[in-house]
Amino acid sequence: MKAEIIAVGSELLTPHRQDTNSLFLTEQLNKLGIEVVRKTVVGDQREQIRDAFKEALSRVGLVISIGGLGPTEDDLTRETVAELLGRKLQLSNAILRGIQERFRRFGREMPEVNKRQAMVPDGAEPLDNPRGTAPGLWIEHQSQIVVLLPGPPGELKPMFTTRVEPRLAGYAAGRRLYKRELRVAGMAESDVEQRIAPIYTQFTEAETTLLASPGEIQVHLRAWSEDVAAAEKLLNEMTERIRMALGEAVFTTEGESLEEVVARELTLNNSTIAVAESCTGGLLAERLTSIAGSSSYFLGGVVCYANNLKTAWVDVPAEIIEAKGAVSAEVALALAEGIRRRSGALLGLGVTGIAGPAGGSAEKPVGTVHIALATGDGGKERGFHFPGDRERIRWQASQIALDMVRRHFLYSTQTKAPAKG
Amino acid sequence: MKAEIIAVGSELLTPHRQDTNSLFLTEQLNKLGIEVVRKTVVGDQREQIRDAFKEALSRVGLVISIGGLGPTEDDLTRETVAELLGRKLQLSNAILRGIQERFRRFGREMPEVNKRQAMVPDGAEPLDNPRGTAPGLWIEHQSQIVVLLPGPPGELKPMFTTRVEPRLAGYAAGRRLYKRELRVAGMAESDVEQRIAPIYTQFTEAETTLLASPGEIQVHLRAWSEDVAAAEKLLNEMTERIRMALGEAVFTTEGESLEEVVARELTLNNSTIAVAESCTGGLLAERLTSIAGSSSYFLGGVVCYANNLKTAWVDVPAEIIEAKGAVSAEVALALAEGIRRRSGALLGLGVTGIAGPAGGSAEKPVGTVHIALATGDGGKERGFHFPGDRERIRWQASQIALDMVRRHFLYSTQTKAPAKG
Repeated sequence: MKAEIIAVGSELLTPHRQDTNSLFLTEQLNKLGIEVVRKTVVGDQREQIRDAFKEALSRVGLVISIGGLGPTEDDLTRETVAELLGRKLQLSNAILRGIQERFRRFGREMPEVNKRQAMVPDGAEPLDNPRGTAPGLWIEHQSQIVVLLPGPPGELKPMFTTRVEPRLAGYAAGRRLYKRELRVAGMAESDVEQRIAPIYTQFTEAETTLLASPGEIQVHLRAWSEDVAAAEKLLNEMTERIRMALGEAVFTTEGESLEEVVARELTLNNSTIAVAESCTGGLLAERLTSIAGSSSYFLGGVVCYANNLKTAWVDVPAEIIEAKGAVSAEVALALAEGIRRRSGALLGLGVTGIAGPAGGSAEKPVGTVHIALATGDGGKERGFHFPGDRERIRWQASQIALDMVRRHFLYSTQTKAPAKG
Repeated sequence: MKAEIIAVGSELLTPHRQDTNSLFLTEQLNKLGIEVVRKTVVGDQREQIRDAFKEALSRVGLVISIGGLGPTEDDLTRETVAELLGRKLQLSNAILRGIQERFRRFGREMPEVNKRQAMVPDGAEPLDNPRGTAPGLWIEHQSQIVVLLPGPPGELKPMFTTRVEPRLAGYAAGRRLYKRELRVAGMAESDVEQRIAPIYTQFTEAETTLLASPGEIQVHLRAWSEDVAAAEKLLNEMTERIRMALGEAVFTTEGESLEEVVARELTLNNSTIAVAESCTGGLLAERLTSIAGSSSYFLGGVVCYANNLKTAWVDVPAEIIEAKGAVSAEVALALAEGIRRRSGALLGLGVTGIAGPAGGSAEKPVGTVHIALATGDGGKERGFHFPGDRERIRWQASQIALDMVRRHFLYSTQTKAPAKG
């Protein structure tokens, strides 16, 4: 069974608001084996709404709309759909009483306009709304299903879960969506593509999508199937072959974020970390501490923008800054060693660079970043010229820094503390 | 002139990804007087893409698509649109050389797959992409315009601004969208609504929308008009009356971020700042340094998660931590004073709290946060119980901390350094 989602509301066609209900609905529908093949946003005009429903009904068996069920003159979904399907609207006294009661409970009289929300198209089933005044509607039309839901997420979600999902479960086939998500650090999209295209093109039963963001490539594998075992086997085989092709650049096969993976490694290895950042300005510490429970491995960090603070706070020798410049391999290493010593952590990370837009030179252009990891057995340093703007450069630098920690644990023979696992 | 936006990509039909480029495009189009009347998301299938373009071209004069211009087999927008419009694809040697050069600049050979990106439909104008390999395309078809843009926002935005907008400006009518955006810190949405509803309901020529996010309410005023002077007068009057009603909680009338406003105040006042954070974990430093040029006012920060580092790095007396707890007004003040002294900055910010999910108690539940500002004339401290999850609590804490700096400059009589302005 295939579905389309129509979000109704002129505010969703402004630069300021976005439909997010469709993400929730897609997730729930996918679990039932229903694929969402199109999403449409239209304004509060009768003609636009009618066209969108008409087109969707020409393509799929299930059309779910969001919004336009309120009491105002802009709320036209109910009437427009009733008209399109050739059904008259009738006042439901039961719904009207419910709305009146709801107002009374909040100590108010029902405004006359809310009466519109008690109108039900012939043959439609109202879906009651414990969180608001607008009931939803379930309409079976020939062999198709049309579901009208209210726009506020706090009303839509419980209505879908309690009233719509159980009904749809009966209609949906046994077909379900199975998936994997590999994530790759430190490779370009086209390199990933070139290495894995020969693999995934052999697996025509699964869809493969590559998504690129700064410093990270995601490989999404999706297979619709009625057979759990076959789908799992297929995806496991694809995952394994892709992982082999990409090597240790793959940091997860389950869609985890890089900070989640690093947090797990630090925890499993009973390790601790501290960071000294310049150009990333706190982003690296922020990402490490965004994970719940980070206080067990993250001891602290310093953001030393001013050069004298690099010396005062983490003992970067002023002579090195003088001789090599604040953005240099030597300073990155000194930051990493210094913060490791000053914090008492087992690992120290140091980052220094030019995030721009100002501060670049011919020798060290904007995007030049040095990143170092101190482990107690000496330090590793890597230098980069990252493309992009300030935000992107900072993000890529934090990505590589986290990835250096992850890769450290691939090789570390665990001398400091026994692993729990 | 009316427009539709089509976002192409199967990943945009999953629960995990959402098109956000259309918000940027809508904003830019609105400025040109072009209204967006529909947005559609379709998957990477040839038939879906073709249908979406075909339908859109039956309704509006301008169709802009996002995505599907990459080098992989999933990237079908270019070919599908060429076919729909009956135009052959030709290899452009100029584009091919550009792509090859780009790869060479990053020290790599162009993979063979990228050649597809150099294919141009007959009569189309390629839009060059300084940030990536995929050129966009501008196609005039009969009296309609079709624009194909790449999906990555870092490529789409500059391409639109430099290559598409100037061309569209010639086509667009005299009707333009005028707007203002007030932002408010430290008030609840319903309080803002209650104070300003009596004002904005009087101005029926303008649309008013309130958007709430953690620690911030935005008030968007929008008016379509052919008369610049009338629109500006209307919006100025609305802005002034709303600002009066909300007082100093309004931190901008031009849609600036709080960090931008704080950066400007610090710069205009020749001030400097340093931060000592615990629960925000680097977020506060990250926000202050996200602004270009922040090195002129931001000296440094420490993230002292471990209690002993609060003492070692910023001199928080161990007895205070012992007596009052790490999450206390006293520790927040000691963090602010300590980082001010240790960094040599004119202002010091201190934040300590419980971001959760663990670590709360009956006396100090998750969400308890103390924030202090040290100014040299003593310190100010405020305590909060923020609602929400870890991310939301951290964000609200950083928001209040920044707002304390902004409010400081509302009253400071500028004794430290003369203002430039």
